[in-house]
Amino acid sequence: MTKYIALAAITLDGKIAKNSRHFTDWTSKEDKIFFRKELEKGDAIIVGNNTYKTARTYLSKRNCIVFTRKTRTVKKVKNLLYCNPKNLDLKKLIKDLRYKRINILGGAETYSFCLKNGLFDELYLTIEPIVFGQGIGLFSEKHDKKFTLVSTKKLNKQGSILLHYKKK
Amino acid sequence: MTKYIALAAITLDGKIAKNSRHFTDWTSKEDKIFFRKELEKGDAIIVGNNTYKTARTYLSKRNCIVFTRKTRTVKKVKNLLYCNPKNLDLKKLIKDLRYKRINILGGAETYSFCLKNGLFDELYLTIEPIVFGQGIGLFSEKHDKKFTLVSTKKLNKQGSILLHYKKK
Repeated sequence: MTKYIALAAITLDGKIAKNSRHFTDWTSKEDKIFFRKELEKGDAIIVGNNTYKTARTYLSKRNCIVFTRKTRTVKKVKNLLYCNPKNLDLKKLIKDLRYKRINILGGAETYSFCLKNGLFDELYLTIEPIVFGQGIGLFSEKHDKKFTLVSTKKLNKQGSILLHYKKK
Repeated sequence: MTKYIALAAITLDGKIAKNSRHFTDWTSKEDKIFFRKELEKGDAIIVGNNTYKTARTYLSKRNCIVFTRKTRTVKKVKNLLYCNPKNLDLKKLIKDLRYKRINILGGAETYSFCLKNGLFDELYLTIEPIVFGQGIGLFSEKHDKKFTLVSTKKLNKQGSILLHYKKK
């Protein structure tokens, strides 16, 4: 069974970015360290094309499944696999690729697609002690889902906190 | 010095309600117990008129400052004080009333007004382990504010968590 583990950093008011071009330059050093360690454990990542573009240099070294509306087929460029998840059996594809542990990196549309389609088992949520007020939320669609909190960890002095949830 | 202490319950994706008529019937028993105890400690509450209406029976027993756009003056009806905070010196009014500890109960516009105008010293944020995806966020306006995490407390088995922040 493949495990789908979402990673996200949000402000204390639940924003992942100020706008769609806003790269996560506001997260703590400690969150970035956790994030990198977590990616090391995984076989591949799922990421939306916009989010992929904001972090291409860093992510392009890894096995990436990049969600995009721009392709009807599955395009593979080295370790990058571009696909429109609405047009294929993603679970079968991932099984064929023998990926056992997948990290979902967002953005909001990608998190929502995965949550809606049974590709969302766990969530590591870092809450940074700042407020944006307005911006992009964690999800792009309505959901009504329950989780269980597995653990909490204070990451640093200013109070970035890492919450680990499992989907009920 | 009067202390302004905001209380809020949000989903793990930062929503305070599904829509403006959605009463907080989704929060845990343990959050409700904390909420009531916290109100006991305070001298008065600040609450927006819409939020006040959704919880009138419960809140009307307390000293309430109800924010509304509908009045130009300050209207006092027993322990209820209706005002448009943009039209008066609220800090002076509160000083005259000798309120030392005030709880801000929302909604989003009220939280934003208080944060913008120096009436927001601390925040008790309960994060319930559920997802709405879409809905009303904690704030109604853009902000760029930093906080410090003072403490965390797991409230129950399913993992409602209470975070206590102070404004930097």
